[in-house]
Amino acid sequence: MNVMSIQIGVIGAGQCSLEIESLAEEVGREIAKKKALLICGGLGGVMEASARGAKKEGGVTIGILPGFSFEDANPFIDIPIVTGLSHARNFLVVRSSQAIIAVEGGYGTLSEIGIALKLRKPVVGLRTWDISKKIVTVETPEDAVKKAISLISRSL
Amino acid sequence: MNVMSIQIGVIGAGQCSLEIESLAEEVGREIAKKKALLICGGLGGVMEASARGAKKEGGVTIGILPGFSFEDANPFIDIPIVTGLSHARNFLVVRSSQAIIAVEGGYGTLSEIGIALKLRKPVVGLRTWDISKKIVTVETPEDAVKKAISLISRSL
Amino acid sequence: MNVMSIQIGVIGAGQCSLEIESLAEEVGREIAKKKALLICGGLGGVMEASARGAKKEGGVTIGILPGFSFEDANPFIDIPIVTGLSHARNFLVVRSSQAIIAVEGGYGTLSEIGIALKLRKPVVGLRTWDISKKIVTVETPEDAVKKAISLISRSL
Amino acid sequence: MNVMSIQIGVIGAGQCSLEIESLAEEVGREIAKKKALLICGGLGGVMEASARGAKKEGGVTIGILPGFSFEDANPFIDIPIVTGLSHARNFLVVRSSQAIIAVEGGYGTLSEIGIALKLRKPVVGLRTWDISKKIVTVETPEDAVKKAISLISRSL
Repeated sequence: MNVMSIQIGVIGAGQCSLEIESLAEEVGREIAKKKALLICGGLGGVMEASARGAKKEGGVTIGILPGFSFEDANPFIDIPIVTGLSHARNFLVVRSSQAIIAVEGGYGTLSEIGIALKLRKPVVGLRTWDISKKIVTVETPEDAVKKAISLISRSL
Repeated sequence: MNVMSIQIGVIGAGQCSLEIESLAEEVGREIAKKKALLICGGLGGVMEASARGAKKEGGVTIGILPGFSFEDANPFIDIPIVTGLSHARNFLVVRSSQAIIAVEGGYGTLSEIGIALKLRKPVVGLRTWDISKKIVTVETPEDAVKKAISLISRSL
Repeated sequence: MNVMSIQIGVIGAGQCSLEIESLAEEVGREIAKKKALLICGGLGGVMEASARGAKKEGGVTIGILPGFSFEDANPFIDIPIVTGLSHARNFLVVRSSQAIIAVEGGYGTLSEIGIALKLRKPVVGLRTWDISKKIVTVETPEDAVKKAISLISRSL
Repeated sequence: MNVMSIQIGVIGAGQCSLEIESLAEEVGREIAKKKALLICGGLGGVMEASARGAKKEGGVTIGILPGFSFEDANPFIDIPIVTGLSHARNFLVVRSSQAIIAVEGGYGTLSEIGIALKLRKPVVGLRTWDISKKIVTVETPEDAVKKAISLISRSL
């Protein structure tokens, strides 16, 4: 593993439709293809689908868990970070990512988008909350990851 | 002081216009008149104005501070809670309030609204983010506090 | 209530002997007599006994709770701060207190003493962990509170 | 990387003697030789020395940082977790490790040992705080890692 790979966060709901899962998985695949690390909340739905995608391409996945147990991590998480902080771990997902890709998402995702925009962290949105022009809206997983990486490069 | 007064959170930006300050101060006044405790983030702008309003009516104010020092609290905070958690203290403002009143607000406020909705906590909005029907929109500070209290009663 | 009263933290185990409870209650009484605010973890044992003591003297008590519910607070807590941070709330108890009084205590208390000493916060010990000369050891609750207040004055 | 490698935490002071650094580096080497992941606080002293040791053997290192920036990580951290939680990140270092190896250490380390014992997590001590029989004392880095791994196996 290279020291200090790019770290891209994928956020979205813990439960979602098959269509959204499929998009999230594709996002994970693209992140791994670019040799970036995938950071997520470690649970189900978008988190699990994106981690599964990353593993299919041999990527590395980090799950920042809200609860108390390593076992909470979905099966595609390589490295569980156990926080015991409940939803407050959302802050850590955002802070530990150089850019965020939001795939749809509910109120938890909204809170993470708010945090990311507050911290002036790049946010790329795929069918997500339309609440700010600062969210870079894209149509495909491939574009989402490309855009995220270009925004990180620009901010370095 | 009565054991377990109602605790109402006021959220909004750390810097705001005089007009918004004036609304926030009025919200603080109304909270104190109802003998409820005011919870806020303890800093400037909406937080300071609402705490000032509460103190003018003899209320009690709690400031949940992001930083490391008691001195960070605005002069109208009775009880500073020093967290050292930076923005993650937003979660504590929401969790420690039985209802939230959002007065305008930027991305930090958006993150708190997201958290509150995620936790199914009542949110009353005064000129704030229009992102969910679950936010009860009001026009005046008096209505904001009335509505917050009635929503708390209903959820008890 | 005066703006910015002294805030004294009382730490100790959630379960303890009657003898230790009685000492903790006395510590709470003395804190209230001095018009200081009592900060604690909000649960049982030493936390509950000290809060009960403070209330008997008309004091004000803050409970910084590890869990998700206001109802977790013991009956002598005026103002519950709900964190959802589990044991990580120990840091907030320490940071929000200008001095700490440790009454006996187990490993959780040990972690709080470690934090307090790391933050160069005054620690007064009543039958507690004997791990550093920086802990000011006392024999009675009255001395504990006197000593805590004098250490705060010195550090201001 | 294997899914769910063993995660061993190394704790100790951010500044230490050359002798302690050398012990910490050896601990890191041994962790990597056993194909375990090294978790640490990501900064200097024992944290940096242990991470350097792990990298010399081709291991993988995680640094759970207290501050706001990826750049805070020492040069031997592969994956920085940025928390913005200040010292409260100590809890995450402990929770994210299946066993803890304490190398000497000051009050911050003491707080982490307290947390680990509270959470009934195995603690192995190399010249560290002598405060509980539950700390398994060892004399060499090699023994520290062997012991940590055997304690994890027993607890699974």
